[in-house]
Amino acid sequence: MEVKPGRMKKLGTHLVVDAWQSPGDLLNDPEHIRRAMIDAITAGGATLIDLCVHQFSPHGVTATATLAESHIAIHTWPEYGYFAADLFFCGAGDPHRAMEVLEIALEAKQVKRTEFTRGFDPGVGIQGCAYPKQLAPRLLKTSATRG
Amino acid sequence: MEVKPGRMKKLGTHLVVDAWQSPGDLLNDPEHIRRAMIDAITAGGATLIDLCVHQFSPHGVTATATLAESHIAIHTWPEYGYFAADLFFCGAGDPHRAMEVLEIALEAKQVKRTEFTRGFDPGVGIQGCAYPKQLAPRLLKTSATRG
Repeated sequence: MEVKPGRMKKLGTHLVVDAWQSPGDLLNDPEHIRRAMIDAITAGGATLIDLCVHQFSPHGVTATATLAESHIAIHTWPEYGYFAADLFFCGAGDPHRAMEVLEIALEAKQVKRTEFTRGFDPGVGIQGCAYPKQLAPRLLKTSATRG
Repeated sequence: MEVKPGRMKKLGTHLVVDAWQSPGDLLNDPEHIRRAMIDAITAGGATLIDLCVHQFSPHGVTATATLAESHIAIHTWPEYGYFAADLFFCGAGDPHRAMEVLEIALEAKQVKRTEFTRGFDPGVGIQGCAYPKQLAPRLLKTSATRG
């Protein structure tokens, strides 16, 4: 296959998210997380190829979704009320909209999102490709208090 | 489940990698990528739970590995000789060693790694948790010219 160097531009948006103050019971419920992932994928306008949800012992859940647009992964630590999420979207879809659904479903009250642009060719004058745009941490209302 | 705020420390290392100048044929070969992923997981000392490898049309491969330690995801754009990789390891394992195996297998000649620490509690005086440690881009020898 012919490779065309120097013609590459942005290929994807990668949202790196850390979220705190979620109820431990929600973070330890694989079926709740499975539904939240599917709802997030739908809301983000993405296409699911494969979804793996795994429950750890004694607690914790990992879910990885392979998408036509790339992937979403979530890892939970119920004992800390914390979860990490990664949403890598190329082409169509809106990772921020998908993340909103996860935040609401898991009732995270503090969330930090960092956005990366992935895929720039380093030879076209852009120093590397992984430059983060840090979005301010924010307090969220829980789903129970949302309007 | 009881949540213990303020007691959380580092939970994981997340390596965000962009790699260029790989042969398009390797980046478009799902079986080669499947073997490279399994070799990388073994080298990194991680435990595989599930592996999804998907071939796109007309070209491009995505592979997502759900690990006991979190996940590895790789997305290739053969037409640009580019791939994006994410290696999120909590607890045991060495994502850098796993990434070396992927770089060699896919013969990437330019690689940029950015390392994140994930999971710090923002309430314990650390401003957020996603602060990147950017590792210098470097030229790699291809596997054909190594050692």
